[in-house]
Amino acid sequence: MDGDGASSTGATPSEEMNGTGNLMDFLDEPFPDVGTYEDFHTIDWLREKSRDTDRHRKITTKSKESYWELIKSLLDAWSGWVVMLLIGMLTGTLAGVIDLAVDWMTDLKEGVCLSAFYYSHEQCCWTSNETTFDDRDKCPQWQKWAELMTGHSEGAGAYVLNYFLYVLWALLFSFLAVSLVRVFAPYACGSGIPEIKTILSGFIIRGYLGKWTLLIKTVTLVLAVSSGLSLGKEGPLVHVACCCGNLFCSLFSKYSKNEGKRREVLSAAAAAGVSVAFGAPIGGVLFSLEEVSYYFPLKTLWRSFFAALVAAFTLRAINPFGNSRLVLFYVEYHTPWYMAELVPFILLGVFGGLWGTLFIRGNIAWCRRRKTTLLGKYPVLEVIVITGITAVLAFPNPYTRRSTSELISELFNDCGALESSQLCDYVNNPNMSRPVDDIPDRPAGPGVYSALWQLALALIFKIVITIFTFGMKIPSGLFIPSMAVGAIAGRIVGIAVEQMAYHHHDWIIFKNWCRPGADCVTPGLYAMVGAAACLGGVTRMTVSLVVIMFELTGGLEYIVPLMAAAVTSKWVADAFGKEGIYESHIQLNGYPYLDVRDEFTHRTLATDVMRPRRSEPPLAVLTQDSTTVEDVETLIKDTDYNGFPVVVSRESERLIGFVQRRELTVAIKTARQKQDGVVSSSVVYFTEDNPQVAEACDPQPLKLRRILNLSPFTVTDHTPMETVVDIFRKLGLRQCLVTRSGRLLGIITKKDVLRHMAQMMNQDPESIMFN
Amino acid sequence: MDGDGASSTGATPSEEMNGTGNLMDFLDEPFPDVGTYEDFHTIDWLREKSRDTDRHRKITTKSKESYWELIKSLLDAWSGWVVMLLIGMLTGTLAGVIDLAVDWMTDLKEGVCLSAFYYSHEQCCWTSNETTFDDRDKCPQWQKWAELMTGHSEGAGAYVLNYFLYVLWALLFSFLAVSLVRVFAPYACGSGIPEIKTILSGFIIRGYLGKWTLLIKTVTLVLAVSSGLSLGKEGPLVHVACCCGNLFCSLFSKYSKNEGKRREVLSAAAAAGVSVAFGAPIGGVLFSLEEVSYYFPLKTLWRSFFAALVAAFTLRAINPFGNSRLVLFYVEYHTPWYMAELVPFILLGVFGGLWGTLFIRGNIAWCRRRKTTLLGKYPVLEVIVITGITAVLAFPNPYTRRSTSELISELFNDCGALESSQLCDYVNNPNMSRPVDDIPDRPAGPGVYSALWQLALALIFKIVITIFTFGMKIPSGLFIPSMAVGAIAGRIVGIAVEQMAYHHHDWIIFKNWCRPGADCVTPGLYAMVGAAACLGGVTRMTVSLVVIMFELTGGLEYIVPLMAAAVTSKWVADAFGKEGIYESHIQLNGYPYLDVRDEFTHRTLATDVMRPRRSEPPLAVLTQDSTTVEDVETLIKDTDYNGFPVVVSRESERLIGFVQRRELTVAIKTARQKQDGVVSSSVVYFTEDNPQVAEACDPQPLKLRRILNLSPFTVTDHTPMETVVDIFRKLGLRQCLVTRSGRLLGIITKKDVLRHMAQMMNQDPESIMFN
Repeated sequence: MDGDGASSTGATPSEEMNGTGNLMDFLDEPFPDVGTYEDFHTIDWLREKSRDTDRHRKITTKSKESYWELIKSLLDAWSGWVVMLLIGMLTGTLAGVIDLAVDWMTDLKEGVCLSAFYYSHEQCCWTSNETTFDDRDKCPQWQKWAELMTGHSEGAGAYVLNYFLYVLWALLFSFLAVSLVRVFAPYACGSGIPEIKTILSGFIIRGYLGKWTLLIKTVTLVLAVSSGLSLGKEGPLVHVACCCGNLFCSLFSKYSKNEGKRREVLSAAAAAGVSVAFGAPIGGVLFSLEEVSYYFPLKTLWRSFFAALVAAFTLRAINPFGNSRLVLFYVEYHTPWYMAELVPFILLGVFGGLWGTLFIRGNIAWCRRRKTTLLGKYPVLEVIVITGITAVLAFPNPYTRRSTSELISELFNDCGALESSQLCDYVNNPNMSRPVDDIPDRPAGPGVYSALWQLALALIFKIVITIFTFGMKIPSGLFIPSMAVGAIAGRIVGIAVEQMAYHHHDWIIFKNWCRPGADCVTPGLYAMVGAAACLGGVTRMTVSLVVIMFELTGGLEYIVPLMAAAVTSKWVADAFGKEGIYESHIQLNGYPYLDVRDEFTHRTLATDVMRPRRSEPPLAVLTQDSTTVEDVETLIKDTDYNGFPVVVSRESERLIGFVQRRELTVAIKTARQKQDGVVSSSVVYFTEDNPQVAEACDPQPLKLRRILNLSPFTVTDHTPMETVVDIFRKLGLRQCLVTRSGRLLGIITKKDVLRHMAQMMNQDPESIMFN
Repeated sequence: MDGDGASSTGATPSEEMNGTGNLMDFLDEPFPDVGTYEDFHTIDWLREKSRDTDRHRKITTKSKESYWELIKSLLDAWSGWVVMLLIGMLTGTLAGVIDLAVDWMTDLKEGVCLSAFYYSHEQCCWTSNETTFDDRDKCPQWQKWAELMTGHSEGAGAYVLNYFLYVLWALLFSFLAVSLVRVFAPYACGSGIPEIKTILSGFIIRGYLGKWTLLIKTVTLVLAVSSGLSLGKEGPLVHVACCCGNLFCSLFSKYSKNEGKRREVLSAAAAAGVSVAFGAPIGGVLFSLEEVSYYFPLKTLWRSFFAALVAAFTLRAINPFGNSRLVLFYVEYHTPWYMAELVPFILLGVFGGLWGTLFIRGNIAWCRRRKTTLLGKYPVLEVIVITGITAVLAFPNPYTRRSTSELISELFNDCGALESSQLCDYVNNPNMSRPVDDIPDRPAGPGVYSALWQLALALIFKIVITIFTFGMKIPSGLFIPSMAVGAIAGRIVGIAVEQMAYHHHDWIIFKNWCRPGADCVTPGLYAMVGAAACLGGVTRMTVSLVVIMFELTGGLEYIVPLMAAAVTSKWVADAFGKEGIYESHIQLNGYPYLDVRDEFTHRTLATDVMRPRRSEPPLAVLTQDSTTVEDVETLIKDTDYNGFPVVVSRESERLIGFVQRRELTVAIKTARQKQDGVVSSSVVYFTEDNPQVAEACDPQPLKLRRILNLSPFTVTDHTPMETVVDIFRKLGLRQCLVTRSGRLLGIITKKDVLRHMAQMMNQDPESIMFN
């Protein structure tokens, strides 16, 4: 709005004529710095939009002049799609590379492939002659470290050596990761989603989406995941995708020079990130819409979808898992679920909600401790210690030793006839013919019982360690650990229900749907429902979560269980606190984020929030024709406001416009250098008419109407804050002036609004209403 | 905002005290009519929101008083979900009933089931002993009319008799439909989507979503579809779902008394409608988001999804097609597509775009003719004539005789080994073993060639007749006819490509992917791509279209062809005109709809749009302390404005607030009746202080501050219209006052904005920029 509102005003028919005639505005060339923002400042959405319209108008006008300009205008119109294509391709490629590298390095902790050291365990045994899955895992080309070094693959010595090397590799990876982050790109740590939410809402954090962050985050993500820490790659992939988006923005001035347009691209990039993280393009778009984006016009919806699809297809072309699936834990179920099963599903939802609350409270408390105590001073040591504990505790348990994605994949999978995992060690009826698909419920064998114990231990371990892991100075997502917690709990519940149904066919609840010899309970589905519930409890995602899970299973059939669990988990978690983990981290870090979902229902008015307060000195204002250059310079020096209202005179206080601090500084500096006769005592004029100061004795006046925003946003002092909050949210304002009958009373900035909202939230609602 | 802004103001701490002390406002009880809108008026979103917050606050406060109030507040919080559940269940049920009834009545045109007259052809032959599909169609229980009446099923006589009865039934059905619409519910005609878009954007059309409309639309929809006219049930189903939504809104005062909240429910209902129309819950939510909704907060997203799912599951429980699919034309493909096929897919996209343009232009021209000429006077005759023409032309061609859904289903389906349709009459290699799934490309037999001719004729017929059908006074959707046009064109192209590939394996383009004996081209996929392209060209849907189609095929694999076609079709159609069919009909009917997608890029300012214009008389304003009751009454009588600005005095013209016409009328009427001493010469006071008119000779003053909105929305005269349009859109304003330094200059209403936008659109952009 501001600067450009004024310049577009300058070009209206009537003023255009005056402008060239009477007014001798020296500012023909645009200021070099105008229109950019400083670090950690908030952008003005209306202004960005207006600037883009101006740019667009210019190009449209020019395109009629020559063919070359026409081609340029077409290129400009297409650049949005080109950016999406590039983002999709790069994001898909990076996701594929990360998947391959993680696969290899995770296996490197256990052993090495003799035929080619860069093969992962699975790739190494791919060409092996063994036919069963079990034997194939033990193909001769793949050697564990102990076997390679001592020649013995069994025995206590080999176990200890393998154990030791497992921990060593983990420590090495995590040390590398944290060192790289510390030295090259401090912004590469964490999941990045809280910051991306803040950036998308219109905040500037320079370098957060830079090239270095992209490079370092990609490398350290591989290291962090491979180290076996309880973290996932999904959140950081969104950050990586947004870095890609920012990278390609810089190729097109349409996006690089407009912070508003840039955010449209970033929203789409976030969708592409989730698309490759879960192999769910539609879920990715909905995630971007529901969870991270602030301003999401329909055009962005369509482009996000395109980017998400391109990314998914690029990843499929790379085919990192060798099965043309985009994620390790894609499953298809074949048996239906029954109404009575909704009870355990809802119980899993309750568990998910409780887990979400526990995790958020514990993690936030720990992160606050990290911020305020000595702990925060030694990030490298912290990572090393946590990695050490994780690796030492994880190795003995086969369910925590492997990568979390593999664990989730195994838990999600239904036990087929060929499954060799311990979890599928059921007692088979020897008389029964075994169809591949439809295996009836069977009694659990000893393997299942020992697996249950190990899973229970793994569950406790994951719950505790994840709370301490998330927020360390390495890239760490919490989707995967949350899903793992839920999947373990779900599988345990699933097996319990299955065994109960097998042994008690005659109970009333089982009688109707679970006859002897029928395949009535799918423990894998319970694991998936549990994963959805836990993820929902932590992030409070709803539609996007269900759609992501739907794309993971590929059947409409299972939407109802997933939805029941997701809704229950959200309700339970909401009962303990409205904020999800991302919002909590945003609050913890004090980012100026105006959540679209918080409803402001207090009865305060604009006058209660605006500054100056009653006790404070009056607002710093400029007058339209009686301030000198010196006055302005003093004002700029003495205050740190982002801009100043301009009034007719100090007496009447009638508002005529608003001028940005930055533009004022630049304009005065330029005028002092370039324009003769502008001295400290020159009067600054914001009026339209030519000032009547033609006498030679007076110093040359400085006319600054061009940088004056003639349409500042105003509300009256009686406007309910509810409306003001709505206006700030929907229009993306930076500040808003408060007037009464045209008299300027004060100003409300985005930070004032946020502060007021936080204040209201902490007070008891009753005390506000009746005091 | 308005009335309630003032009333919430009245309750702030400081004024509360004053209010009970000094000011003797008599208006303690709320006005009976305040807060409702008149028919064909626009709602004020901010005001509705503010009213809901007030209501919510009241309930929260009360809930602490007693257990009963707590339970009431919980019920209130849950009512949103209950409404969604009810909407989903009723919509699903109605969709199932409509499907069953249409099935039966469509078959009734050809014959009757002897075992039970209420069986459709398929249900009738369900229990038949014949095993092949072909024979099963000719089961003895099902008799054509000629067979039943004359005993002969073959021969010219039987054909003529069947022909005659087919036309007769069609005429009867359509006559019944149009008569019911004419007599009982005129709003039940058309697809309803343009009106629903307008209503959701904040317009009031009383009765459009009423009970009668629901009942009559459901019944006449069955009749209209059964009559064989070229129309579908998908659009009207959205209308039916919204009627259900409105019906259930009236059960809860939270929704029935707040037009803003009501629209949230209607958005969700629209999603449920599409969900059952296409068996695509996610697509339905995206359709509601992309196509029809105006204000779509995240809470609505989640609830829409719930309603859409409930509706889909209800429909599945009814199982109208007996195959546990929600729509007739669900398909699954098994063969992949190849990069080279993108060329025909994009050509289909071009065709879709051209069809969209042709249809929109032709249909709008015809509808305009209907509105302006004698044609509009005889709607019943028009329907009869069009039905007659349709039936007479449709009967001889087997592809137009059957219902359009069945046609689409057949065109989408791949030719399996057991397929007996004429379209699958390929020459089989007798030496070849025939696997069921994977049939290689074969040369076309004579049946395919004759089918091609019939399809080409059907294509021309459908294109022409649909243009004249849509917009008649019966329920008519255009999804199905559009899809049919595209599916026919697509299938023709698909067969052509298939035959080309079979006969010219050696051509370069086929060499790489289409070896002899391979199954390389799936004509059914071409039909689906064509259908998507044509639907996209007409409606300009993008993401929701692709997602709906994705849910119809159930494979991520085919998203790329669908997307290529949808994007091409949108671009081609957009090149000829930006508006889709719904927007065109909205314009044709002159509804005040502010499209979110139109970008306003002109350089006009608020001052160019506001009224009064230079030549017009000044704005009708009230002063805060010098207008008499008589003056106000004269003003109300002489003007028809919705409200009046209140200024300090006519000289200073400084704005202090805005008062609604409706509230002013009610307040004066009530005061005249109830308050002693209020006569025509009484002065109306809008000031805060107690007026100094205590002398006995003066008439009693009338204090109306309570109805004064102290926070009217203002912009300055220099505000670019671009920003003003943005504000109107995002905040859902009805009007906005224009000021300069606090002096009131004019007013801009939503209609002014729309008029200005239309004016700008029609002018050459250059002439505006430089004149």
